[in-house]
Amino acid sequence: MKALVYHGPGSKSLDEVAKPAIVEPGDALVRITHTTICGTDLHILKGDVPTCGPGRILGHEGVGIVEEIGSAVTAFKPGDHVLISCITACGRCDYCRRGLYSHCATGGWILGNMIDGTQADFVRIPHADTSLYPIPAGANEEALVMLSDILPTGFECGVLNGKVEPGSTVAIVGAGPIGLACLLTAQFYSPAEIFMVDIDTNRLAVAGRFGATHLVESGESDAAATIMALTRGRGVDTVVEAVGVPATFELCQDLVAVGGIIANVGVHGAKADLHLERLWSRNIAITTRLVDTVSTPMLLKTVAAAKLDPSQLITHRFSLADAMTAYDVFARASETGALKVIITP
Amino acid sequence: MKALVYHGPGSKSLDEVAKPAIVEPGDALVRITHTTICGTDLHILKGDVPTCGPGRILGHEGVGIVEEIGSAVTAFKPGDHVLISCITACGRCDYCRRGLYSHCATGGWILGNMIDGTQADFVRIPHADTSLYPIPAGANEEALVMLSDILPTGFECGVLNGKVEPGSTVAIVGAGPIGLACLLTAQFYSPAEIFMVDIDTNRLAVAGRFGATHLVESGESDAAATIMALTRGRGVDTVVEAVGVPATFELCQDLVAVGGIIANVGVHGAKADLHLERLWSRNIAITTRLVDTVSTPMLLKTVAAAKLDPSQLITHRFSLADAMTAYDVFARASETGALKVIITP
Amino acid sequence: MKALVYHGPGSKSLDEVAKPAIVEPGDALVRITHTTICGTDLHILKGDVPTCGPGRILGHEGVGIVEEIGSAVTAFKPGDHVLISCITACGRCDYCRRGLYSHCATGGWILGNMIDGTQADFVRIPHADTSLYPIPAGANEEALVMLSDILPTGFECGVLNGKVEPGSTVAIVGAGPIGLACLLTAQFYSPAEIFMVDIDTNRLAVAGRFGATHLVESGESDAAATIMALTRGRGVDTVVEAVGVPATFELCQDLVAVGGIIANVGVHGAKADLHLERLWSRNIAITTRLVDTVSTPMLLKTVAAAKLDPSQLITHRFSLADAMTAYDVFARASETGALKVIITP
Amino acid sequence: MKALVYHGPGSKSLDEVAKPAIVEPGDALVRITHTTICGTDLHILKGDVPTCGPGRILGHEGVGIVEEIGSAVTAFKPGDHVLISCITACGRCDYCRRGLYSHCATGGWILGNMIDGTQADFVRIPHADTSLYPIPAGANEEALVMLSDILPTGFECGVLNGKVEPGSTVAIVGAGPIGLACLLTAQFYSPAEIFMVDIDTNRLAVAGRFGATHLVESGESDAAATIMALTRGRGVDTVVEAVGVPATFELCQDLVAVGGIIANVGVHGAKADLHLERLWSRNIAITTRLVDTVSTPMLLKTVAAAKLDPSQLITHRFSLADAMTAYDVFARASETGALKVIITP
Repeated sequence: MKALVYHGPGSKSLDEVAKPAIVEPGDALVRITHTTICGTDLHILKGDVPTCGPGRILGHEGVGIVEEIGSAVTAFKPGDHVLISCITACGRCDYCRRGLYSHCATGGWILGNMIDGTQADFVRIPHADTSLYPIPAGANEEALVMLSDILPTGFECGVLNGKVEPGSTVAIVGAGPIGLACLLTAQFYSPAEIFMVDIDTNRLAVAGRFGATHLVESGESDAAATIMALTRGRGVDTVVEAVGVPATFELCQDLVAVGGIIANVGVHGAKADLHLERLWSRNIAITTRLVDTVSTPMLLKTVAAAKLDPSQLITHRFSLADAMTAYDVFARASETGALKVIITP
Repeated sequence: MKALVYHGPGSKSLDEVAKPAIVEPGDALVRITHTTICGTDLHILKGDVPTCGPGRILGHEGVGIVEEIGSAVTAFKPGDHVLISCITACGRCDYCRRGLYSHCATGGWILGNMIDGTQADFVRIPHADTSLYPIPAGANEEALVMLSDILPTGFECGVLNGKVEPGSTVAIVGAGPIGLACLLTAQFYSPAEIFMVDIDTNRLAVAGRFGATHLVESGESDAAATIMALTRGRGVDTVVEAVGVPATFELCQDLVAVGGIIANVGVHGAKADLHLERLWSRNIAITTRLVDTVSTPMLLKTVAAAKLDPSQLITHRFSLADAMTAYDVFARASETGALKVIITP
Repeated sequence: MKALVYHGPGSKSLDEVAKPAIVEPGDALVRITHTTICGTDLHILKGDVPTCGPGRILGHEGVGIVEEIGSAVTAFKPGDHVLISCITACGRCDYCRRGLYSHCATGGWILGNMIDGTQADFVRIPHADTSLYPIPAGANEEALVMLSDILPTGFECGVLNGKVEPGSTVAIVGAGPIGLACLLTAQFYSPAEIFMVDIDTNRLAVAGRFGATHLVESGESDAAATIMALTRGRGVDTVVEAVGVPATFELCQDLVAVGGIIANVGVHGAKADLHLERLWSRNIAITTRLVDTVSTPMLLKTVAAAKLDPSQLITHRFSLADAMTAYDVFARASETGALKVIITP
Repeated sequence: MKALVYHGPGSKSLDEVAKPAIVEPGDALVRITHTTICGTDLHILKGDVPTCGPGRILGHEGVGIVEEIGSAVTAFKPGDHVLISCITACGRCDYCRRGLYSHCATGGWILGNMIDGTQADFVRIPHADTSLYPIPAGANEEALVMLSDILPTGFECGVLNGKVEPGSTVAIVGAGPIGLACLLTAQFYSPAEIFMVDIDTNRLAVAGRFGATHLVESGESDAAATIMALTRGRGVDTVVEAVGVPATFELCQDLVAVGGIIANVGVHGAKADLHLERLWSRNIAITTRLVDTVSTPMLLKTVAAAKLDPSQLITHRFSLADAMTAYDVFARASETGALKVIITP
């Protein structure tokens, strides 16, 4: 079969590789119908993810059709249309029982990282019963690829951890795909105001179409001063960090209101300053989270009820044969306007 | 009347000053029967608290007897025995309605800071109806001084924010009076293990008597390695920072388990490093809080039911005439073994 | 001044009465600009509310302008435009501190019940600082009358107690003004489906315009069977009882899903059967609540942010001189289509 | 092997039956080392549980040693000492993912009911990975039988649902084994007062030894009046119904404080009156629950930490050969003083 293979820092290619096979009784083999590229895939290509070695098929998002199941799989059968979670969960270890699927003793984020991933014709999914989700008949399957990672990540790490509530204020620092996923799902809870902060005016324009009430260009202006003025000096109830660098995390500390929450979503590669000399008495919380995808069933219901339209996040479509081009378009997002690109085997 | 007066950095004296009077309709005048000294008073004396200027009577803890009330006070009358909260709360502003008494628009921590305090024969208490608590007949009034600040601080900032629960693990970094207050109140929730960390072996010995299950001397050993070994590498569910310096806050980051909480109690004067490059994916929370004293009614019930014995924290007793000596004994705690010192006018 | 006065069961009239005066330091005198009639007023007129005696001015909802304040009022001054809460709260008793304003030791639902109410030119409001809310400049003040009682009642007793969440299912039994208030505020949380049950097809039509996804006419059909079929036998996550009779409470028990909640909003005059022989093992909760109006600040924010349009509930307008006609139109709601009628002095 | 077999209403015997075998890949075969009898077993023998037919081996509690595993079992291997949960959970269906193991699509309470149970030399456990719990080395295995059902039931249905908290008041109506399990686990949260209500003075005496602060004999006195007097008319914060008849459920309604909770634990065979005419405005909750055993890992930790001593509940011990006698002693508990009887194959 065809697959997009990582060959070490800076190197990838679309290769002909062996089709995967069932290994464990809990495995399912899924024929991919749609997959996509994540910012994390670009991190891997930079060599920033040491758990991912050369020869690995990339990709941890996708939908497809069950091709074959192991002897212990009971929830799915060949022919079922399924959503693949970016997080593999056994459902039985201590972490899984507490809803911390991301730290599953034999799973977590392994797809396209420690085992072969979804940017291929087929993928093997361990712990299939608890790592796949049935797709209801009539769904827009392409759009559901957004539920593999980006929407649960924005929702769980940003919105649920950030405790968005009716009438509250929200600031989202970073209007990339993940920040936009926060923006879309924050609106489940009817906040009064959503401040979107980015340096890219094109992305801010998208945020405006997606429901942000205030667009704050951080390159040209003092974003903190702007938002503090708009909140009459109180600051913001829920501040979402969706970039992953020290400067944006510092900005979040300037924005958070007394009693508020900084919900970190960004993947950080370096430590940041925490201004405890100011924050110790401000009654705030800072949360971190690798997405658990425990909210996937809830998100599927909101899509079915048209409370959430994931297809808005899709900007480009490619065949798997053009996967190298897809990577290029996605990597040059500031020029191409790419949010999420769909790849179809 | 006599009062302990701050005269600028490094300077204090026991002075004869005018007795306070009712100013606002919501005020009460309270005759102090017992007060105490807080670590924060020492901070003021170092000049670290700019809101507190020379001439200020110190002290934000105490019990006493209502001497006089303003026209709008309805919950108390002269002769009532009362507990004074370290936090003054109007009960009506946005923050108070949300339980954030510490950020009350016209209150918060003002006693012995922005207005005259309790280390005196008498004190004026604004917003008396919502800043004083009735003392039940027969209570050990001296012991209740511990409920003005130290026990609600340990309980709210450490235990409630830290979500201690039956069978969980707790580490408390810092075995001073506040750390010990965390230790006493953490046991309300029956955690399995409480690791107490300090450099002072005398304080650790006290912690052992107060219920800590493991005493970790941080000066001689690698506290993080010790505790990680004791938890079989999982780390600790609730980590309480009760010191207030960058090094101990860093230690907390080394101890916290996946899914755990770092509950900051310490008063910090400097920023600290936050290791987001490790913590972003660990599903943790960090909380900060200036005590709100919203738990005071609950704590009074636990004392009445003998679930908590605050008198254990009292090591020394002085008359107000000897207040200067009391400060000296309290400041040299590592030599004197002082935890809380009672001062009686 | 003019006022609508209750003279005992079945008897009321628009009378000329003395203008109220400040009695306690915490009182405010408010000149009413808009008030309305509640179903509870009709209950009083039937003689069902023994705490309300002859001579009482009715009405517990309204907006107005502060005319005069007592010496202890600090949050308001003459000329301020204010929303009057149906619940009077001292903000300092044990119940108020726990957010149970409805059981305030010296307040609760007393307006137009135990003290004179708002269907008059002026009303005296005790505990004004914690029982009035400032109206922002530019607000639609008439519409805010809906925030005195009906919207916080629907929101707190139905939606918050019922824990509506994204993607969940909701059934509201009773499409009167209170049921419709539940319907409007349930949508803050983006549930997937809202089943509205009533015998009145006109009210169901209103519910359809207000966002209900399924309209179930209970007179002609088996509402339980219809809804169980629509939920594929699972039942409904949040079931709101908004009528107040045993038959509708029984219907709620037929509808509630495993793990679901029956949130009672209705005012009941008789006991009901509770089918514990079926429900003991269904992991459900049943909640009751007299509205606390603790959510009023949140609701004011949602109105300001246009997440909620309270004016939709207003169907008729009268002058205070025509208050007797207003009662008649409101009492014959099934003929007149009245939801809420505004009365303007 | 030997097994205690149900032969229809009123009829049981200790029979020689075939040893069970692995059927599904997720099954484990467990050799029972200790089991016990539950009140529910007596209900089955009365013919009250229609899902349990003649020929069924009774028993849903026990500890043992894994004898054999199916091909999909990964968490256990032969020789492991295990605690058997009374609830069988697949860990993957919608209910299990929400923690509602008791309503597992292919599990729930099936042991000794819809499939053969634990009062035998061997038992087959479906979904073994998520229905068994590892027993730590050195544990008192006999005592852990109390964690199969009775302690999680008291804890989850009574204490967790009832939200017991430090300084709060608790009333437990019914001092049988389940009521006593509530009593033991309520103390995890340091309530101020625990009122124990029963007609049996022997059981009340046990409750006194187990930590109840007030013993209320309901046969001779007006339990409601007694407790209302002791709470100065406020009522009780958490009221646990641990009997299962209408009269005791009515008593709970008389006891519950404003803002309180009635946590139903009892198994009810008939409907009860719900006094909504009084309760609609009291801001209470009523909860029901079939135990989910989601708290089993937490309870195991509290036992290991000596915060809970389950062995206190054991009053008698029998060999499996004497199982008929064990049933007799357990059924005549008021005469024999039996709480839980251990049966050892």
